[in-house]
Amino acid sequence: MNCSVARTLEVVGEWWTMLVIREAFFGVRRFDDFQGRLGIARNVLAARLQGLVDNGILERRLYQERPERFEYRLTEKGRDLYPVLVSLMGWGDRWMAGENGPPVTLRHDCGHAAEAVVMCRECNETLTSRQVKAERPAEAMVPAAAKSSNAASYTSGQG
Amino acid sequence: MNCSVARTLEVVGEWWTMLVIREAFFGVRRFDDFQGRLGIARNVLAARLQGLVDNGILERRLYQERPERFEYRLTEKGRDLYPVLVSLMGWGDRWMAGENGPPVTLRHDCGHAAEAVVMCRECNETLTSRQVKAERPAEAMVPAAAKSSNAASYTSGQG
Repeated sequence: MNCSVARTLEVVGEWWTMLVIREAFFGVRRFDDFQGRLGIARNVLAARLQGLVDNGILERRLYQERPERFEYRLTEKGRDLYPVLVSLMGWGDRWMAGENGPPVTLRHDCGHAAEAVVMCRECNETLTSRQVKAERPAEAMVPAAAKSSNAASYTSGQG
Repeated sequence: MNCSVARTLEVVGEWWTMLVIREAFFGVRRFDDFQGRLGIARNVLAARLQGLVDNGILERRLYQERPERFEYRLTEKGRDLYPVLVSLMGWGDRWMAGENGPPVTLRHDCGHAAEAVVMCRECNETLTSRQVKAERPAEAMVPAAAKSSNAASYTSGQG
């Protein structure tokens, strides 16, 4: 599918994968630490880590020679998932938090809380879907079977 | 798991679910239009739409009485997923776009492109993971079996 959302979900759309990335952002690097924090089966974790290495999101680095031990660190491509992680977290904080409120606070160096927003780089203004139009070429995101009926641009925002 | 990322992924972490939400933001409302644009099996689509209604992300509205026809519209909770969608799209644009470049441009009313960033609400400054510390209580995000070894706060950012 010629769509950046679909392509991203192909790489990080699996539930455990995003939680592995979350732990990496929280500073976890070693297999046993990922395993202990996530309580995930070792074979599943090994497959997820390998997938993230194959996709260039984590890199595997030797940190001990005898016996050989490796750790996993976020690459530039991996660190660039930070807005995805923070936007997932923010939505969960606003809509899924239990009685005790959000479990984690992201604290900026200045002392205030950080959050993911959609903004216009030029205006420096926070945007909602109502102020943004998605321009997509006619062939984008449409499976071959449905290519006969589509328009060139959609106004997003509704409801 | 007491974690807003995990709770969000429980609701929207399934591949097709996020693509259904993408279409809703692009203005799609009717079953046959979702089906045509996504090329998804009707039974899978029906299950995803029902799940999104059950979770309060879409609402089902009668738009025709004889025969009865319904459309699906984003609720406030659903529209609040916009930063998640835009951050997924932005990462895909930067890292997964093919030769033809990003398939969709999100155009703000001002004429400039919109993007999802992590910012400090107070400083109005764009942040990276290196400038943000995740404060989480000791019991957060740790499965019961692993609760013996954890600390109270983690500095995010690494690599």
